Amino acid sequence: MSLVIVGSIALDSITTPNGSITDALGGSAIYASLAARHFCEPHLVGVVGNDFPISSLQMLKKRGINIDGLEIKTGKTFRWKGEYQQWNYALTQETQLNVFADFDPQLPSSCIAGDFLLLGNIHPALQLSVLNQIGTHKLSSCDTMNYWIDRTYIQLLEVIKRVDIVFINEEEIRTLTTLQNVYSAGQKVLELGPRIVVIKRGEYGSVVMGRNFLFFAPGYPVKEIIDPTGAGDSFAGGFMGYLTKVGKFDEQTIKEATIYGTVMASYNVSSFSTQVLESVEKYEIDKRKKELHEWVEF
Amino acid sequence: MSLVIVGSIALDSITTPNGSITDALGGSAIYASLAARHFCEPHLVGVVGNDFPISSLQMLKKRGINIDGLEIKTGKTFRWKGEYQQWNYALTQETQLNVFADFDPQLPSSCIAGDFLLLGNIHPALQLSVLNQIGTHKLSSCDTMNYWIDRTYIQLLEVIKRVDIVFINEEEIRTLTTLQNVYSAGQKVLELGPRIVVIKRGEYGSVVMGRNFLFFAPGYPVKEIIDPTGAGDSFAGGFMGYLTKVGKFDEQTIKEATIYGTVMASYNVSSFSTQVLESVEKYEIDKRKKELHEWVEF
Repeated sequence: MSLVIVGSIALDSITTPNGSITDALGGSAIYASLAARHFCEPHLVGVVGNDFPISSLQMLKKRGINIDGLEIKTGKTFRWKGEYQQWNYALTQETQLNVFADFDPQLPSSCIAGDFLLLGNIHPALQLSVLNQIGTHKLSSCDTMNYWIDRTYIQLLEVIKRVDIVFINEEEIRTLTTLQNVYSAGQKVLELGPRIVVIKRGEYGSVVMGRNFLFFAPGYPVKEIIDPTGAGDSFAGGFMGYLTKVGKFDEQTIKEATIYGTVMASYNVSSFSTQVLESVEKYEIDKRKKELHEWVEF
Repeated sequence: MSLVIVGSIALDSITTPNGSITDALGGSAIYASLAARHFCEPHLVGVVGNDFPISSLQMLKKRGINIDGLEIKTGKTFRWKGEYQQWNYALTQETQLNVFADFDPQLPSSCIAGDFLLLGNIHPALQLSVLNQIGTHKLSSCDTMNYWIDRTYIQLLEVIKRVDIVFINEEEIRTLTTLQNVYSAGQKVLELGPRIVVIKRGEYGSVVMGRNFLFFAPGYPVKEIIDPTGAGDSFAGGFMGYLTKVGKFDEQTIKEATIYGTVMASYNVSSFSTQVLESVEKYEIDKRKKELHEWVEF
């Protein structure tokens, strides 16, 4: 089984209460791929400029990430500059779309033949374009953000109607559905078509809802958050990576996928950029999964 | 085994986005006792004025609550008037202490002989007075609120040092410890002496911390909150009621007590005042406990 991950690839400049970093590897597809690699071979689809460091390409390959679908264009890589004054809100200071402005994801044959799909947080028109290329037989998922809910609502609804799994955070699902109660909001999203909606609640963990299914995962107790960028992406990457590995979509698999997503997000936030995601080992991931099991079972 | 519950008894006038109610039964000891009664015989210690409705006394007795420690004084019962514009914050509009102003809890012999103690949210000086009456052999717990952290910090610390279990919400433990990370804050409280600190997080559930113990409980997914008043008290009442029933203080019992606390709080918030707490049956409580089990196990 393979997992195709489509999303942004960025060079991020980030300031948090714990420091700052300049032109560091980031973007939804990068975070998700580095999280998914522990469970399957992610096929990364995205675009970078020719200023993108070769070392980062080498790192991705070395981590078992297939980059056949990575387009290298003349120009500069997408750049984002932001600051966190609170952990749950990034203030965007500058966005340079650069080569990402004309991103038109074309799936190579190895990706079209993929089984599972994660549409990272990008313009819903691009997400739709990918859905059109892969047909309807794949298990597909999407992530999004308030930016797209506010600006491209109709297109985003079209994406949501066509995927099996929606990753969305609590504030976003309230905006999307105009419902304050997250469970009512989750039901409303399920009525649009998806089989599962995963509502992320930051440090409080997540709620996963299906038509006759409910699951709560706590947030992993992180001692010190260094940089929350990519937490949602690595959650989705870990989740979809595990589904891909198991190749099933039953309740037990969804529960374990949620826990793996939780663990990947916890490692993600404990360093700037992808530092810990690059170095963390599978046994460490399984250790945190086991801890979470102990901390919720009764 | 018996549980002594000391706290306020009030006639509350409350406005929420879902309606309002005038001079309705409330107070920390009332909510806690009505939650605990499903598990043990709560011994209620508090004071009311002679305007307190006889029907409420009858209701408490009929629910198996021992009111030997309930003092009836000439004068008016404590009254609180508040409004919720957000579910997690009550704006106090009026407080009439009335007979509560001179409350000096005197435990009757049946209470001094009690095994477990819950000090509801009242002035720390009163909590200390009760601790002095019962000696040190009892398993004791306390609840508190920001009001006392701000005004009676030293006395509150003294209470915390002397109890086994502290119930406190997330915002309060941050204020108390001046630490933002709830896990660091929890550790700091444990270092003061308690064996367990229960950090309540509203709709997100709770985190229970011990020296080598951690447990997460989600909030029960309530379809519609009607009145959040007393949620923390009924949580503590359900928690301590279950500990009293089992008569043990091991990890498994603490986990189940947390879940029972969660369930009692969920019933509490689904009506104004004590309406649902008065009528809910044990089989309904166990049904929600079973649901929570299903929703967290993986």
